[in-house]
Amino acid sequence: MELTNRTIVTRNYIDGAPKESDFEVRSRVVSLSREPAGSVIVRSLYVSIDPYQLTRMKSDSSSQSYSSLATGIEVDCYGVGKVVASGDPEFEEGDLVGGLLAWGEYCVLKPGAMFRKLDPMGFPLSHHVGALAFSGLTAYAGLFEVGKAKKGEKVFVSAASGSVGHLVGQFAKLHGCYVVGSAGSKAKVELMKEKLGFDDAFNYKEEPDLKATLKKYFPEGIDVYFDNVGGEMLEAAVDNMNAFGRVAVCGVISEYTGKGRKAAPDMMDVIFRRITIRGFLAADFMCVFPDFMSAACEHLGSGKMVSLEDISIGLDSIPSAFVGLFDGGNLGKKIVQIAAE
Amino acid sequence: MELTNRTIVTRNYIDGAPKESDFEVRSRVVSLSREPAGSVIVRSLYVSIDPYQLTRMKSDSSSQSYSSLATGIEVDCYGVGKVVASGDPEFEEGDLVGGLLAWGEYCVLKPGAMFRKLDPMGFPLSHHVGALAFSGLTAYAGLFEVGKAKKGEKVFVSAASGSVGHLVGQFAKLHGCYVVGSAGSKAKVELMKEKLGFDDAFNYKEEPDLKATLKKYFPEGIDVYFDNVGGEMLEAAVDNMNAFGRVAVCGVISEYTGKGRKAAPDMMDVIFRRITIRGFLAADFMCVFPDFMSAACEHLGSGKMVSLEDISIGLDSIPSAFVGLFDGGNLGKKIVQIAAE
Repeated sequence: MELTNRTIVTRNYIDGAPKESDFEVRSRVVSLSREPAGSVIVRSLYVSIDPYQLTRMKSDSSSQSYSSLATGIEVDCYGVGKVVASGDPEFEEGDLVGGLLAWGEYCVLKPGAMFRKLDPMGFPLSHHVGALAFSGLTAYAGLFEVGKAKKGEKVFVSAASGSVGHLVGQFAKLHGCYVVGSAGSKAKVELMKEKLGFDDAFNYKEEPDLKATLKKYFPEGIDVYFDNVGGEMLEAAVDNMNAFGRVAVCGVISEYTGKGRKAAPDMMDVIFRRITIRGFLAADFMCVFPDFMSAACEHLGSGKMVSLEDISIGLDSIPSAFVGLFDGGNLGKKIVQIAAE
Repeated sequence: MELTNRTIVTRNYIDGAPKESDFEVRSRVVSLSREPAGSVIVRSLYVSIDPYQLTRMKSDSSSQSYSSLATGIEVDCYGVGKVVASGDPEFEEGDLVGGLLAWGEYCVLKPGAMFRKLDPMGFPLSHHVGALAFSGLTAYAGLFEVGKAKKGEKVFVSAASGSVGHLVGQFAKLHGCYVVGSAGSKAKVELMKEKLGFDDAFNYKEEPDLKATLKKYFPEGIDVYFDNVGGEMLEAAVDNMNAFGRVAVCGVISEYTGKGRKAAPDMMDVIFRRITIRGFLAADFMCVFPDFMSAACEHLGSGKMVSLEDISIGLDSIPSAFVGLFDGGNLGKKIVQIAAE
C-alpha cells in the first residue's frame, strides 16, 4: 500500500520569532514495503504544538543544549495516532498509539521509535496529547519533584493559562497551596480566576513593575515559582522569594525568540535566602509517571481539574498554530487535529 | 574590673567598594558589672575578615537578604578569644572560646550569644577561625551537600586561592575529582598548582573569553561549579556545564561592590541540561559539622590538606585587611590577629 504523506517542514533556519512563511508542506509517497522490517505506519490524529520546538529550528546549535534540525526535515512532536499498516506483530491496523510522531498526516515509526499502545481510559483522545501526556507530567514533576510544593505554600506560575501552566496551578490548588498566575490578557486572567480556581491572577502586560506586583500578590513571599517565561519575570520572582524558595525552570518563552533580555536574578538573594533554581525536562521524571497518571485521571475524571485545549484543525493549520504560541495566541494546550478519529 | 575596649566601626554606609576611611576606631569602657547577669568578656585573639560582611554595611537593606548594620555599631564576625571575665559559671578566666565575636579588642558576650569552649586539638588557633570553622564548613557543605560532588567528577572553583576556594579544591582533589581553579594573579595560579594540588588553574585577568577558557580546561564539561564570584564567570561556567550539573552559589564577590555586572546565565542551557543553581549558607549545614570536622582534622593532621592563612596583626589593620578582600589582596583565609596568644 502506498500513501501520499503531507508533512510540514522548515524552509530555513529560524533565529528570531517564527513566521508562517518559514514553513512549507512537503509531499512524499510512503510505503511499508520500502521501510525497515518491523516499521509501523500511523495516521496522525492529534499532534502537540510546543514552544521548545523552536529551539531545534535555530541555526546555532553551539550551546550544546539541543540538536538543530536540518531544514526540510520533519518536525517530531508528541502525538496520538492510529495504526494503518504494521510490520510489527505487536501492533495491528486500527490500534491507537501515543508517542513521538511528527507534523505530518502519516508517520513512519521505525523499530526503536518511541511509542506505545494507547488506552484512552474514557478520556477524549486530545487529553492524551496534553494533560495526560507530557504537558501534564511536566506540570506534576516540576511542581512536586523539582519545586517540592507543600500544602499551604505560596506558588506562583507564569504563562499560567498555557499548556503546562494551567495544569500546574490546578495541581497546586488541589494540593492545598495558595496559587497566583500571570498571563498576557484580561480573558486569560478571568479564566484562571473563574474556571481554574486560582486564588488570584494578573495580566503582566498591565504591570510596569513586576517586583512590586508580585509583592502585592504575595505579601508573605513566594515559596515555589514555576517558571515558563524567564527574563524579567524570573528576576521579579527571585526578588520576592522566601528563604529556601525553589524555582522550577520549565521554559523561557520570553527568550526563545531572542526578543526578551536574559534574566539576571540577584545572586545575593539566591545565597542569603538559599534559593534553588533548577531546570528540568519531564522525560527525566518517568519514574513518577504512574503517580502522575493516577492523580491526573482522578482529578480530570471527578471534574476537579479542567484540561484546557486550543485545537486547530488540519495539517495546514500547523504553521499558524506554532507561530501563535509566541504571540500568546493560545489558551491552554495547543493541539492540531490532523484527522477525524 | 574595667577595660578600655577599642573596636572598629563603620563611619557611614558603604554602597560601593569599601575604603579604609569608611572605618574608625571607637573606644569604650566595658565592665562585667554593667552587663546583664551571665555575660562573659572575651579578649579577641583571631578574628575573621569576610567579604559577606560588606552586604551588612550597605544603606539599602530592601532586598530582604540581610539586615543593615547601623553605622557606628560593632561589626560582628567569627573569631577565637580567651575569657577575661565571666559571669557565667560554665566559663572561667583563661578559657579559650570560638564563636560570634566582633572587630574589637574585647567582646562582651551576653547570655544567648553564639559561642562555645574551644579545644584546639593540637592545631594552631588561627585554623579555628578558618579551615576548622565556617570557611571549612562552607567548603565542605557547598561541595558535597549542595554540589553533590562525586569521585571522578569535574569540579571548577572560582576565587580558588581564597578563604573557602582553596579548601574546596583540596577537598575535591582528596575526594577523587578533577579540579581546576581560577584566581586573579600568576602567584595564586602557581600556588594552586604547586602547593594545593589542583589539576590546573588559570588567571582570569588574562582570559578575554571565559567561555572559551573553561572549554579548554574542561573539554569534557563541568559537573560541579563552586561559585565564589558570580557575574561573567557564572555565565561561562553554566555555558560549559554537563547535563545534571550543579552550581553551588557561595559568594558573588564581583557583585558585592556593585562594580561587576550581574550574571545572566542562559536559562535554555539550565533547562535542557537540567542544571541546578543553588545558593547556600554554611549555617544551614550544622548537621554535617561532625563529618566535616572529622575529615578536615584528618586531612590537616596528615598534611594532605593545607590551610592557607593571610594574617595581619593588630586591631588597626582590620580596615586595610577588609578593603584588600575586594582587590584580591589576600591569599587564603584573611585573619587579623588582635592579641598574642
